[in-house]
Amino acid sequence: MLPVLVVHGGAGHIPKERAELSCGGVMEAVRGGYSILRAGGSAMDAVVEAVTLLEDNPAYNAGRGSVLNVKGEVEMDALVMDGRTLGSGAVSAVRRVKNPVQLARLVMEKTNHLCLTAEGASQFARAMGMEEVPEESLITDYARMRWRKNLAPGANPVECQMGKMGTVGAVAVDVEGNIACATSTGGMLNQMAGRVGDTPCVGCGGYADNKVGAVSPTGHGEAIMKVTLSRLILFHMEQGKSAEEASDLALAYMRERVGGLGGVVVVDPQGNWAARFSSLQMAWAAARQGQLHYGLYTGEHFTEPLEKPSQ
Amino acid sequence: MLPVLVVHGGAGHIPKERAELSCGGVMEAVRGGYSILRAGGSAMDAVVEAVTLLEDNPAYNAGRGSVLNVKGEVEMDALVMDGRTLGSGAVSAVRRVKNPVQLARLVMEKTNHLCLTAEGASQFARAMGMEEVPEESLITDYARMRWRKNLAPGANPVECQMGKMGTVGAVAVDVEGNIACATSTGGMLNQMAGRVGDTPCVGCGGYADNKVGAVSPTGHGEAIMKVTLSRLILFHMEQGKSAEEASDLALAYMRERVGGLGGVVVVDPQGNWAARFSSLQMAWAAARQGQLHYGLYTGEHFTEPLEKPSQ
Repeated sequence: MLPVLVVHGGAGHIPKERAELSCGGVMEAVRGGYSILRAGGSAMDAVVEAVTLLEDNPAYNAGRGSVLNVKGEVEMDALVMDGRTLGSGAVSAVRRVKNPVQLARLVMEKTNHLCLTAEGASQFARAMGMEEVPEESLITDYARMRWRKNLAPGANPVECQMGKMGTVGAVAVDVEGNIACATSTGGMLNQMAGRVGDTPCVGCGGYADNKVGAVSPTGHGEAIMKVTLSRLILFHMEQGKSAEEASDLALAYMRERVGGLGGVVVVDPQGNWAARFSSLQMAWAAARQGQLHYGLYTGEHFTEPLEKPSQ
Repeated sequence: MLPVLVVHGGAGHIPKERAELSCGGVMEAVRGGYSILRAGGSAMDAVVEAVTLLEDNPAYNAGRGSVLNVKGEVEMDALVMDGRTLGSGAVSAVRRVKNPVQLARLVMEKTNHLCLTAEGASQFARAMGMEEVPEESLITDYARMRWRKNLAPGANPVECQMGKMGTVGAVAVDVEGNIACATSTGGMLNQMAGRVGDTPCVGCGGYADNKVGAVSPTGHGEAIMKVTLSRLILFHMEQGKSAEEASDLALAYMRERVGGLGGVVVVDPQGNWAARFSSLQMAWAAARQGQLHYGLYTGEHFTEPLEKPSQ
């Protein structure tokens, strides 16, 4: 059942007019990442490729399309983790970088640290020869419109809830059985400057262990951190639960204990996978054994051959 | 057996001439924090008081006395967590703040975020009216000497190992059964600017849950993150292990799986406590039922009445 790749484009409340964009993007990302796996590439290469495609897609709250903080700036967080070594790399509150997930991977591979933040992360990006992009190139009209709306006195709380959607992520197992995860986000709409959410926090914003599986979550970052959602799901799997059971248990616990909604994509070493969420929607897609799976609302699970171009 | 408070002054290799300083400081910190608990104060107040005392003590790698990063600057991380709500507060790579642990607590109490980083954390400190202190006031001659030594070509790796010592932390249960943890660090000697270690990462640098217990770790931050050490210990306790068994299991796992050394202080809801480490030393002290417990080397466990002034 290997290789397998599962991606998400964020849990939350996705406006109707953006639903198609959200679904199309995760399908494209899973196709891109899976082609690497099918050619014998590594799980790490595949998750970074999938998340890069989602960062470049303005429909998601990561890379280009990120939500703006209270000052109207884009500050992004990203994490990758390698299940073979348990090594990870992360960046938090990084600015003017096109693909934070690629910078996170460089932190893992080129430093003896696991996380770099803010200006230190930017300095490292420059030292690695990574191009600094103008902040404007990351900001969409949609992001700016929502930022303005939320700054207005008496802003609609539904808009604020929408602000929590759109973190992107991926989990994969390659043909050699190596497992990886990647997560990337622009954070929370109108967040304070310097706010760091769950994404760059190992065990919260992702975890990968070749012996157990991998998780990439999305949803209310503060709730995810309170229950260390990713590691919690893998603990349940270590206790014998399936990827799906473990996800449902942990999401139910997060809802009951701290009132948080979210979603996850999960794989285990055998190539079993799950895409589960307690939010209204989560755009997700999975690829395995020539089949593309995808959905947006609870209970939705469409399947089509990977080879056939998506409708 | 309530209340109880356990503190540590860092795991690692503590030079002989500093051993007495290290032990004296944790005993003083535990006395300070425990006096709050005995007067009916909260676990959160007690751990913040104990860690504040350790931050103010130049013998530890936190607050004043922090190690310097590669540029000769002090960048500090801190975390607090409240086991009643699972709420936490953290700061990462914050500069010119006397007591990062107090700023972390303000993040928890005064924002709807859990972590602020770098300049954003400094802005928040100013908004809260927290005094900005000159960087020089945080730097000891000893820290500067070690920084210079480690920058020298062919620097001694023993010195580098020493660079990992000295993170401080505390865990407590108050008379009402509320549980809290706090951890604070100057990071790793000669770290890159913007490096964030395990400390501000929930589940790695600490975790507290009224239903299970609390952990504050110290040691090699990157190894602690790889195994999400704090949450791992609490998972073992949820499975029925004692605080001591859970600590030993998790520290052995960290050593075997990722080659990392460290130490922890742990409490459970009944007031049982543990101070365990795989490093050569860890300065620790605990207070419960009128007794002060302390030690530095493996197997050391001294006891004296809390009322009697320490020798």
